[in-house]
Amino acid sequence: MRGIKGIGLIKMNNLPIEWLGDKVRILDQTRLPQEEVYLELGSYQDIASAIAELKIRGAPAIGVVSAYAVALSALEIESKSKEGFLERLRGISQTLATTRPTARNLFLAIDRMEQVARAGQDVKQIKQALVNEAIKIHSEEAEATRRLSQLGAELIGDGVTILTHCNTGALATAGYGTALGVIKQAKKQGKKLKVFVTETRPLLQGARLTTWELNRANIPVTLITDSMAGYFISRKEIDCVIVGADRIAANGDTANKIGTYTLAVLAMENGVSFYVAAPTTTIDLTLGSGDEIPIEQRSSDEVTHIQGIGIAPEGTQAANPAFDITPHYYITAIITERGIIREPYVERLKKCR
Amino acid sequence: MRGIKGIGLIKMNNLPIEWLGDKVRILDQTRLPQEEVYLELGSYQDIASAIAELKIRGAPAIGVVSAYAVALSALEIESKSKEGFLERLRGISQTLATTRPTARNLFLAIDRMEQVARAGQDVKQIKQALVNEAIKIHSEEAEATRRLSQLGAELIGDGVTILTHCNTGALATAGYGTALGVIKQAKKQGKKLKVFVTETRPLLQGARLTTWELNRANIPVTLITDSMAGYFISRKEIDCVIVGADRIAANGDTANKIGTYTLAVLAMENGVSFYVAAPTTTIDLTLGSGDEIPIEQRSSDEVTHIQGIGIAPEGTQAANPAFDITPHYYITAIITERGIIREPYVERLKKCR
Repeated sequence: MRGIKGIGLIKMNNLPIEWLGDKVRILDQTRLPQEEVYLELGSYQDIASAIAELKIRGAPAIGVVSAYAVALSALEIESKSKEGFLERLRGISQTLATTRPTARNLFLAIDRMEQVARAGQDVKQIKQALVNEAIKIHSEEAEATRRLSQLGAELIGDGVTILTHCNTGALATAGYGTALGVIKQAKKQGKKLKVFVTETRPLLQGARLTTWELNRANIPVTLITDSMAGYFISRKEIDCVIVGADRIAANGDTANKIGTYTLAVLAMENGVSFYVAAPTTTIDLTLGSGDEIPIEQRSSDEVTHIQGIGIAPEGTQAANPAFDITPHYYITAIITERGIIREPYVERLKKCR
Repeated sequence: MRGIKGIGLIKMNNLPIEWLGDKVRILDQTRLPQEEVYLELGSYQDIASAIAELKIRGAPAIGVVSAYAVALSALEIESKSKEGFLERLRGISQTLATTRPTARNLFLAIDRMEQVARAGQDVKQIKQALVNEAIKIHSEEAEATRRLSQLGAELIGDGVTILTHCNTGALATAGYGTALGVIKQAKKQGKKLKVFVTETRPLLQGARLTTWELNRANIPVTLITDSMAGYFISRKEIDCVIVGADRIAANGDTANKIGTYTLAVLAMENGVSFYVAAPTTTIDLTLGSGDEIPIEQRSSDEVTHIQGIGIAPEGTQAANPAFDITPHYYITAIITERGIIREPYVERLKKCR
């Protein structure tokens, strides 16, 4: 992976993911906000590592780069027979699928690429079809977040204060953003907004990335620790909570960044609306409820260390579930590009996938 | 302030606060767990700085060192007349009272010292009486935490998993501990326990101090970020929550470290017992409810930086309320040295002060 320090570049070209024909250019999210570093990833292995190391993250963005990873790997497969080609491709898809277990979009993108490969005539045609399909997934995902942001913005009143968690902006979605897209669109409509951002331990995506994106959108930010959300919600200083999603089960139960469930409980306890914003690619109708969504358990080092510095006695045991499940009954509405979905979720989610 | 690096010392002498006749020796809590550094504080100004900078923290411990600060300042006042002496002392007490606004024990200790001063015969006798009173406050506070730990331990079943927040051990209490005292006493009774410790951002007292104290007590610890408590509570992996308190109003509403309210809401939502452990010196019958408890707002640097390292874009605005209020109806019981108090709190708290 090649690092290009690009403080200048970001001003000209703001794309967190860009297809360059034989490689993918991404903005390294682990280096923000201190440095704006672009990486050019020329192989599926590079992309798989970048996903696992959270250089690129956010369910929709992971879906898009996975599609490009499949396309890049296809270009390198030397098999002349379709059968041999598909077998190689299947192995590569399986590798990609192990990078992050929770994000629905990852699996959906890989499945879609595999279907295109199977439907192709010959290897040469399949290679081109896979590149085209990845670009299509990218553009559809970007368009979905643009559309859901517009729909969601209608829910946001003028002068409100919004609480959001983790990062759900352009960085996370390869497009306009989900929860942060809704906020930015409401601002574009001329509404006065204030946003409280949880820092989102362990990896501080809120402190590092969401503040950075909101600064660039000229939206006033107050950064808080995750533990402070209850204080501000209970004092009626928050009008609504908006978060993204990594996977939504058929009944509306939602997996999202660890801490989301807590915000939903606090919102309900205090009569505050709680919105989930996600493209329909995040919905997984094969799972009846959130109990079936696999939760990624990450390294305990992410808890015992912050930016490489130890914060606990050496050898301290730590847990690190990366996501939690918010049961559907805490969710006021799910904002998708196909409409704003409310209870009963089972029927209505079925219609929009 | 003189720093003594004392890895050896702590093994011989485990006291977080020690009166040396003309100074107070404290264990610097900001340096733990990396270093065990003792500070000898010879003036009330040194003690006031140590409190403001959280070198010594925890409501009961703050009460004790404030009493010593008043005693030390008294020894230095040169006035021969009782009136002049009392006037000087009043000014010093006011300075000490500005260090931390939330902890009840601070104000109670200062009030008690002032009463002793006023009741004294002459300056010489008052000086001795103040030293004696500070030592008495220290010993009473230590005894109260020992006693409440014994009473509280009866609530803890064998084989349970407990969640605790912030640090409430010997370090915080100049004695046995409050919430952590209860846990350690239950372990002494031979009960098998597991403890989940929230890291407690922004200042990481859970990660730095509580893990350290539990390691020394041979109690198995799992460190989590504050945002993970909901995950483990909702999965029924936590049997009860125990926290300390900085001030308890007449109706049982409790001010404690930021994040406590959230844990109480999560506990109630999931049918988990939520206990507050505190000496009766933390109870403030002059305040009808938690709405009247002043909440300390600390520097935003504590949120935007972790151990000196910036985690957000430069200039990011942050809020930093150090405490929140848990309404009494979330609290299963308040564990004090005078008994375990349950609803109706108004009547029962009145009886125990």
